[in-house]
Order: sequence, then structure tokens, then C-alpha cells
Amino acid sequence: MKKITIALDSMGGDNAPDAQVKGAAQLTKELSDCKVILVGDETQIKKILQNQTCNYEQLEILHTTETIGNHDLPKTAILEKPNASVLLAAELVANKNADAVVSSGNTGAMILACAKKIPRIQGISKTALTAVYPTQNQLQRKDRFALMLDVGANIHCNSEELVQFALMGTAYSSAIRKVQKPLVGLLNLGSEEHKGDEILVKTFQELRNNPNINFYGNVEGNDLMKGIVDVVVCEGMLGNVVLKSVEGVAEVAKNLTKQAFKSRFLWKIGLTLLSGGLFQLKQAVDFEEYGGAPILGFSNICIKAHGRSKQRAIKNAIKVAHKSIQDNVCEKIRESLE
Amino acid sequence: MKKITIALDSMGGDNAPDAQVKGAAQLTKELSDCKVILVGDETQIKKILQNQTCNYEQLEILHTTETIGNHDLPKTAILEKPNASVLLAAELVANKNADAVVSSGNTGAMILACAKKIPRIQGISKTALTAVYPTQNQLQRKDRFALMLDVGANIHCNSEELVQFALMGTAYSSAIRKVQKPLVGLLNLGSEEHKGDEILVKTFQELRNNPNINFYGNVEGNDLMKGIVDVVVCEGMLGNVVLKSVEGVAEVAKNLTKQAFKSRFLWKIGLTLLSGGLFQLKQAVDFEEYGGAPILGFSNICIKAHGRSKQRAIKNAIKVAHKSIQDNVCEKIRESLE
Repeated sequence: MKKITIALDSMGGDNAPDAQVKGAAQLTKELSDCKVILVGDETQIKKILQNQTCNYEQLEILHTTETIGNHDLPKTAILEKPNASVLLAAELVANKNADAVVSSGNTGAMILACAKKIPRIQGISKTALTAVYPTQNQLQRKDRFALMLDVGANIHCNSEELVQFALMGTAYSSAIRKVQKPLVGLLNLGSEEHKGDEILVKTFQELRNNPNINFYGNVEGNDLMKGIVDVVVCEGMLGNVVLKSVEGVAEVAKNLTKQAFKSRFLWKIGLTLLSGGLFQLKQAVDFEEYGGAPILGFSNICIKAHGRSKQRAIKNAIKVAHKSIQDNVCEKIRESLE
Repeated sequence: MKKITIALDSMGGDNAPDAQVKGAAQLTKELSDCKVILVGDETQIKKILQNQTCNYEQLEILHTTETIGNHDLPKTAILEKPNASVLLAAELVANKNADAVVSSGNTGAMILACAKKIPRIQGISKTALTAVYPTQNQLQRKDRFALMLDVGANIHCNSEELVQFALMGTAYSSAIRKVQKPLVGLLNLGSEEHKGDEILVKTFQELRNNPNINFYGNVEGNDLMKGIVDVVVCEGMLGNVVLKSVEGVAEVAKNLTKQAFKSRFLWKIGLTLLSGGLFQLKQAVDFEEYGGAPILGFSNICIKAHGRSKQRAIKNAIKVAHKSIQDNVCEKIRESLE
């Protein structure tokens, strides 16, 4: 059996390299056909690996000391640090030494690193940053996560690009969610087909007429969390602001619960009794629970994990990359464009 | 003392005319210098008024049986129903028989009715629909609500229009929030001044250079609920989708809490003990708690109350209109444009 190889940027993210190395180590115990190349500081990586029980033959290290931090300006950093871990990880994929790249580092830098090293799929004009977010799952899927794209790789998009996003989202969602024909919604300020600007009205028509897309119609902001579609398509400006707004509400809800916890004895007892229910609520609004989401449009799988990812999230992000390769997501996108 | 007169569309909204009539009746007991003209079906209004204790001399009825429902198409309805309650209420203002109009009916119809009857303030190119939403109040204001505009009257806006929105928001917020120089934020996908498209970059510069605006800078989606600014400025497409998304999360949180309540005995006890804390949470995410928000840019005050408004919300919406007139909001907008 040929092993699937993942290049893991081991220096990017709030908990790097600890979470990366431990996540990869854990993975080797769960997936025997997956090899991980840890790109980062060899001394640090080896030190963490010492205390792990894992299948060492599935791990490899590519040494570099250059890293791009969350506060570095992506454009400048990519130019000034040619040996940055995220660039070397993308290069491994470009040179066919790895099948996919995973990073939880600086998002802008990852997009630029991939764009610099990995070609786009033929026919794709713009790559899209996706987000996987939890819903109430009214479609009753096996998992309750939906995919939104673009959430910030591009500011504005034309109809052609939005239709490409729909095709890419369809291919990814059908592979990962195991849904035959994922439902696609177009994010808009009203449900009727004449709503929005010229671009959105045109996109509505093109999505409806495309035989490779199972189009639901327009979805509004308050539909997002319900889970009435599998894939939500929008320009990057809209997707970015909406996603962050929703995360912001979840943060506020958590803070208020903490405040309540501090302030009254009766509330403390209540919260303890409620902990099971609150855990459900936390799961439903907490984005840290989920591993990673793809940057779609490149000819190889690129998975962006959350910056705050811990060991388990990194392991899950590698698994998502592994599954995407097994299921030929890039090939399926290519086919749907024909 | 000259009375301030409010034209109240008494037939628009989910709980009309009951909530409208009772809200107005209640108001007469709290504000002696305010007169309300109830525009709607005289028979129905009189029947509800019979059982109210109030100061009848502060109430007047303008009879009409035509109403525009939530599912009516605004453009068509405005043309086909010239005597619709919302149109007659706007006309009362146009003819100087009232100082402000309040409605909790069809939002699109209200915007069109006001646009048909009431002139815009000189120098304002587009009117803006605003939303008042609750925040964590990090600025420690007396009230914890912030103002967002535009939330859907226009799809896209240019820099000049966004600056006008900032000026209108400033005038309204300083009157209602009693803040000397309200902080204004520009909604964007990043905090740095070069973020966003050309329009946003230009707007950033113009807001910073305008002596009448206390500009905070760009705000991102996750900043909205924190309450780090008093006024958030954005185009209607963005504001509409973001506002509805945030409302959607609040809905989901409520549903999940209900589910938890149904499923386990221990959780029930927990919820009962927690009810004080949950009430705080509810207040912080529940948009029904607040009365109304203005449509800004008309030469008279136009307050849109939430469609689900009950008696108390209608009373508060009338109070907001009353306060705006007392504080000369329209005059202040005019001055800030000079």
C-alpha cells in the first residue's frame, strides 16, 4: 500500500511546535498508511518526540529555523524568509515529495506560500479560503458541519468565480461529508432570486442552470447556523466579516456564562448541573473543536488549521488532508469544471 | 409647552393593532408632552382603547383600513394601496401634522413610504436603515447598545455615502446615548488602514480626516459584540447579512437551551437555578428587548420598530422618536454636513 504523505508546517500556530509534533505522533497510531514530514526546528521537534509513543517510521523531519509569526505581514515575510517552515512545506508538495500541506500558522502567509509554490487547478481563476462551521443540522447529515467559501482570500468576486467556488465546495463536501449531491446556497440579503447586486442575480441564474450543482437558492444570514445547505458561497469580504461576527457572538456568550458563574452561588450549582447541556452549546458554537478547512483551487490539498489548534485539532487536520487525497478531491474539482 | 406629535402606523407588525394601541396608551401615562396619532382601523383601535387607562386627550385616530403585510412586495404594495396606514402616517409628517413616524410593519414598505412622502436632508445622497444591537459595552457607556448602519436600505455604497452614514450615526448616537463624541468604526475584513477594497481604503482616510467624526479605525466582525465603538458604518449588503447572522446564532443558542431543558431532569433543576444568569444572556443577545432604530437621512425622524414588537417595545420606539425630536437629531445631521 502506497503511503499518503503530509507536509506539516510544525512551527506555525499558537501552540507550535508542541501541538504539531504530538498531533502527528498520535496520528501514526491511528492511520498506518499516512506519513508526516514535520517541517521545523529539528532540535525542538526531536525533544518533544522523545516522550511520545508512536510509529517513528511514519515520521520524518525537514529542518528549518525560519518561521512566520501571526503578526508578520504575509507579503513581506514570504519574501524575506525563503526558508520559512510554511514555504518549505508547500515546496515539498510542489516537488511531489508530499501529497498535501497542513498549517495552523499565519493564514495570509499560508495562502501566499501555496500560491507561490503550487499551481492552481486549470480553469480556476481564484483560490478560496474555506471555513467549516457547526450548524443545527436541519438536513440531518452524519456530521453537522457546513462549508463556507470564500472567507477572505479575495475581497470581491464575479459570477464566474462564485460558480467555481460552488463547484469546488461541492467536490469537497461530497468527499468529506459523504453526501451525494451537497446542497449549495448563495449568501444574499434576501431569498428571492432578484435580490442583491447584478453579480449575485447573475450568479443565482448560473448556479441554477449548472447541472453539476445542486442549488438550493439564496440563503440569508439567519439561515447559516440552521444547516439547511451543505455549502455556502460568497465573496471573501462578506464571508470573512460574517464568520468573525458569528465567532464574536460565541465569545460573548462564553464570557457572559463565566461572569454568571463568578457572581452567584446558586448559579454555580445550576451551571454544574447543566454542564452536559452547556457542553452541547459549547460544541455547537465553538470553532476550536474542529480541525481544519481547505484552501480550495490549488492542484494539491492545502489544509488550514485554526491558529489555536491543540494536538487533537492538528491530528484531525491531518486526517482531513488524508481523506481529501484518498477521495481525489482535486481530481473531482477538475472533472466538474469540464 | 408644545406637544411633540408621533404618527404611529398602528396596523403594521406581528402584534398589530393590539401592541400599538396598548403601547401608545401606556406612553400617555409616562410622557405628558407627547401626542400619538394612531393610524389604522378606527373600530379595532377604539375597541382596544376601551379597556385601557390612559390620557385620552393625548391620543387621536386617523382611520384607514388599508394595510401592508410582511409578505407584500413593498414596491407593488405602495402603488396599489395609497391609503395604507404606513403611507398615511408618513403623510402626516410630510404635511407637518406630526413630527415623526413610527412603524413596526414591512421594512421595505416603510422605507419606500418615507421616501415617497418625506424629503431627504439636503446633502444626503442615500438614506440608511440602522440597527441598534446589544454589546458587552467595553466602552462602559450608560446603555450597552451600539448603532450599525446601513443594514439593508442600499446594497453598495461609495465613500461619500459611507462618510454621510458616519455623520448621521454620530448625530443620532450623541443624542440618544448622551455621548459627546461617539466613536465610529468602519466594518472591514482587517484592522489595518490598507485593508479592503478601494472604496473602504478611501473611506478610512476620509473618516480620519473629518473633524466632525471621532474615528476609531476599522473594526472586524469579532469586534462588533464587544462594544468598542458607538457607531458601525458599512454598506447595506454587509450590514444586513452580518446582523441576520448574529441574530441567527442567538436563535440557535435559545433552541439548544430549550432542547437541553426538555431532555434531562438534572438540567431542568440547573436551568431553574440559572434563570437569573440566563436572563442576562438572553438580554445580551435578544433583539426583541429593544424598541426601535431610525431610518436616517430623511428630514424628519422615522423609527422602525422590530416586527415582533410587543406593547413595551412600541412604547419604547415612540420614546426614541420623542427623544430624537427633543434633541434635534435631523438638525444636527444638517449642521454636521456643512
